[in-house]
Amino acid sequence: MTAMRWEGWGDPARAISLPPQLRALLDNALGVRPTGRPAGPLDAIELPPPAFDPSGLRTIVGEPNVRTGSADRIRHTRGKSTVDILRIRAGSVEDAPDAVVLPAGHEEVLDVLRWCAQRRVAVVPFGGGTSVVGGLAPVRAGFAGVVALDLARLDRLVALDPVSRTATLQAGVRAPAAEELLAAQGFTLGHFPQSFEYASIGGFAATRSSGQYSARYGRFDELVVGLRVATPQGSVGLGRAPRSGAGPDLRQLFLGSEGTLGVITEVTARVHPAPVGYRHAWWRFASFPDGMGALRRLAQDGPLPAMVRLADEYETALTAPGIDGCLAVVAFEASPVPAVEAVLRAAGGTPLGAEPGEAWARGRFQAPYLRDALLDAGALAETVETATFWSGLPALYDAVRACLMDNLGTPPLVLCHVSHVYPTGASLYFTVVCAQSGDPVSQWRQAKQAVNAAILAAGGTISHHHGVGTDHAAGLAEEVGPLMVDALRAVKRRLDPAGILNPGILLGTTVGP
Amino acid sequence: MTAMRWEGWGDPARAISLPPQLRALLDNALGVRPTGRPAGPLDAIELPPPAFDPSGLRTIVGEPNVRTGSADRIRHTRGKSTVDILRIRAGSVEDAPDAVVLPAGHEEVLDVLRWCAQRRVAVVPFGGGTSVVGGLAPVRAGFAGVVALDLARLDRLVALDPVSRTATLQAGVRAPAAEELLAAQGFTLGHFPQSFEYASIGGFAATRSSGQYSARYGRFDELVVGLRVATPQGSVGLGRAPRSGAGPDLRQLFLGSEGTLGVITEVTARVHPAPVGYRHAWWRFASFPDGMGALRRLAQDGPLPAMVRLADEYETALTAPGIDGCLAVVAFEASPVPAVEAVLRAAGGTPLGAEPGEAWARGRFQAPYLRDALLDAGALAETVETATFWSGLPALYDAVRACLMDNLGTPPLVLCHVSHVYPTGASLYFTVVCAQSGDPVSQWRQAKQAVNAAILAAGGTISHHHGVGTDHAAGLAEEVGPLMVDALRAVKRRLDPAGILNPGILLGTTVGP
Repeated sequence: MTAMRWEGWGDPARAISLPPQLRALLDNALGVRPTGRPAGPLDAIELPPPAFDPSGLRTIVGEPNVRTGSADRIRHTRGKSTVDILRIRAGSVEDAPDAVVLPAGHEEVLDVLRWCAQRRVAVVPFGGGTSVVGGLAPVRAGFAGVVALDLARLDRLVALDPVSRTATLQAGVRAPAAEELLAAQGFTLGHFPQSFEYASIGGFAATRSSGQYSARYGRFDELVVGLRVATPQGSVGLGRAPRSGAGPDLRQLFLGSEGTLGVITEVTARVHPAPVGYRHAWWRFASFPDGMGALRRLAQDGPLPAMVRLADEYETALTAPGIDGCLAVVAFEASPVPAVEAVLRAAGGTPLGAEPGEAWARGRFQAPYLRDALLDAGALAETVETATFWSGLPALYDAVRACLMDNLGTPPLVLCHVSHVYPTGASLYFTVVCAQSGDPVSQWRQAKQAVNAAILAAGGTISHHHGVGTDHAAGLAEEVGPLMVDALRAVKRRLDPAGILNPGILLGTTVGP
Repeated sequence: MTAMRWEGWGDPARAISLPPQLRALLDNALGVRPTGRPAGPLDAIELPPPAFDPSGLRTIVGEPNVRTGSADRIRHTRGKSTVDILRIRAGSVEDAPDAVVLPAGHEEVLDVLRWCAQRRVAVVPFGGGTSVVGGLAPVRAGFAGVVALDLARLDRLVALDPVSRTATLQAGVRAPAAEELLAAQGFTLGHFPQSFEYASIGGFAATRSSGQYSARYGRFDELVVGLRVATPQGSVGLGRAPRSGAGPDLRQLFLGSEGTLGVITEVTARVHPAPVGYRHAWWRFASFPDGMGALRRLAQDGPLPAMVRLADEYETALTAPGIDGCLAVVAFEASPVPAVEAVLRAAGGTPLGAEPGEAWARGRFQAPYLRDALLDAGALAETVETATFWSGLPALYDAVRACLMDNLGTPPLVLCHVSHVYPTGASLYFTVVCAQSGDPVSQWRQAKQAVNAAILAAGGTISHHHGVGTDHAAGLAEEVGPLMVDALRAVKRRLDPAGILNPGILLGTTVGP
């Protein structure tokens, strides 16, 4: 795997340039102008030496697996939100960890955690480094330093149970490697989020990731049947059965815990026989509500295809100029399922053939590359996502769209699609593009604060699949209430009494040593 | 609804007598003899006055809703396990609550909890009173007394959202009433556990109940999308979307919490359009492993019928004498699905027609009535259930069966069926019948201890759907580890600092004031 661009997304060789029609739109409709703020070279940035002496860590994981050079530390600084990229391009590396530590397995993770707990060194579990919600930027105050615990060496397929159709993977396995390891034995996880090229198995579990084919395979938290977790207080092993009546489902405490309660070192997940391939088709609906009705029908009465994803009028106009109404991309395993097509037709859908759908599939992981090109051109580009029940979805859509239209200080382009469907509701995924102001970080933060409030006021969840990190910690507290945040803090105090695990993430800043 | 028999199960008018062939089997093969230990009349038992003055509770819920008479208190004593019934028949009422309190709604529950917390009065949330794992018999030591918090007055359908297909029901609604309320609007929960006739919505949620048609509708914890909970520290409201990436799924902390973390007062659950009816058919397989293979095929590759339930050779021999091999009952909504039948045929199944399946359906809630008749006849009859992944299921079956055969001190009849299936595994449900020894309570407790150990040693979960209560608390600690039990205790301390909520249940006896 090629190392991720430190000041942007993905494989540098796969960088893309803006399509001409988008370029024209930026210039003419949005007033986007070059900002003249390119990033300098990586090796021009020199970090101060580590704030603590990491030699004890070398004893645990071996000399070459503790890295304190500037480049390694900068590559483990924050994540890949637009604000993260704007800041690192501007040379802001004050959140860089003091050391990058690469343990070889569960026992070494335990030892590293104990070492760090004794010395009040904060630990950021690091998988693919793809967080877009500030999940990799802990609070430093009160700590002797910060370690990025890079799980890259936990890269094995531990076990495959073809009878139960489960696979046990170490947490550091990246998604493409997981698919390769499983494909060799005829299986797939079927988990393809937009971060697929870099994201890790442990990260999927720690953030309740949702993939593009969730309609077929489920969210990642629905795939997980077992977890092995290292905490400063010892090991946890959960999952003796697919489902159990033995008390609360404790797997669900670690799923979504974002590294604050323990370090997930192994995940046992449901796998499926690998399909021969996928087919993608485009369907047109007269309006966004009409299309939502069709998706709801599929989600409630079935059958569901592998994916069904519905763009609003604005996203449709940009993706497929000239098409009136709303487009849905529908993915099938192997070949289109007539029963699905019958539901789509009955709900007012018109098939537009396979080719545009296949084009979507070819470009499905390109959006974050496109964002880099937009930022280069002087545009601000970011995404916002939420979910609620079907009956509340139209009002949530209106509220979030109106809020985004009004809070960037300049006219934005706001696009939306329904990305994941359930019997009782669905998620909305918004993309915003506008001209950068003189201070684009503040520009976005202000809009983000407004949109978080709008989501909660309209009854939506603060995140359907990006997670909480630091960006949504206040929203989480509002969503579940301070009493339940406190209950989670109580769990954290038991598992991580020194509070070293990703401090400030998820639970906000009142947790700490 | 007719009041449940205080010294047995169900509606006294529906009591059944033993079928002659079963009677003969008890007499001849198991050596069962009448024990001459019938229960005396209810009104012959006089309880001492309440250990504390409940007049403050009368101010909260109203005079008639605090009951301190012996009959009311005895009817709220423990649950409906075989040991519970044996003990109450023997006049053992020392676990009776001091008062039965019937709040009218969420706010009154909050007030009752605060009142009890201030006075160190333990609170047992009481729905249908159907626990078979000691979930209604808290530890008394250290408390001023015990209140049974009967939720019978929380009996409303609060809201029905036909677009999202969700219903919000108060926790005290009994399952038959819930079905009636929903049927009036064309919907069903589809949740039919054996306790259906008496169990409550809140109890389903608090214990992660699983119903007979779980293959079609899912377990109850999978139906729940929202919860309202009253705790001594205030209210909790959870569930803004079907699924969320906003941290751990906190609904999952209360599902299975068995009244120890809070009192669930409202449940929002997925509902389905009510089917026109169900059809049941019997299928024969040459062996239990053959049948398991067929079930696994349906669970992994679909389509699943509404129910598929496979008896082992022993249960088959008793249920359908003369049929060689193993019987499966397959339930369909409306009419048999050819694609399901094709899978069953391909996996070696032979259809035996509808009539025996319909007979099963007519008798589906009769087992606990039959148990009363067995106890009356001098037999010991109890059930044990567990679950694991498909690859471990045969070994788990062998281990539990062998353990039960060896640990009753007399030759037992041990029957088993696979009751619930998932893509990665399934549950096993054992029924044991044998002659009562002179001390049947000890006889069962000894066997139960052995079988709990056997389940855990074979990798099964300590309970698939009966819950933890007191009977499985030690097993839970072994299953999830003492660290995670402590993490749950930390949650409890935050929500219930006085430790009044069902003390000793779920988390064992080291929790307390």
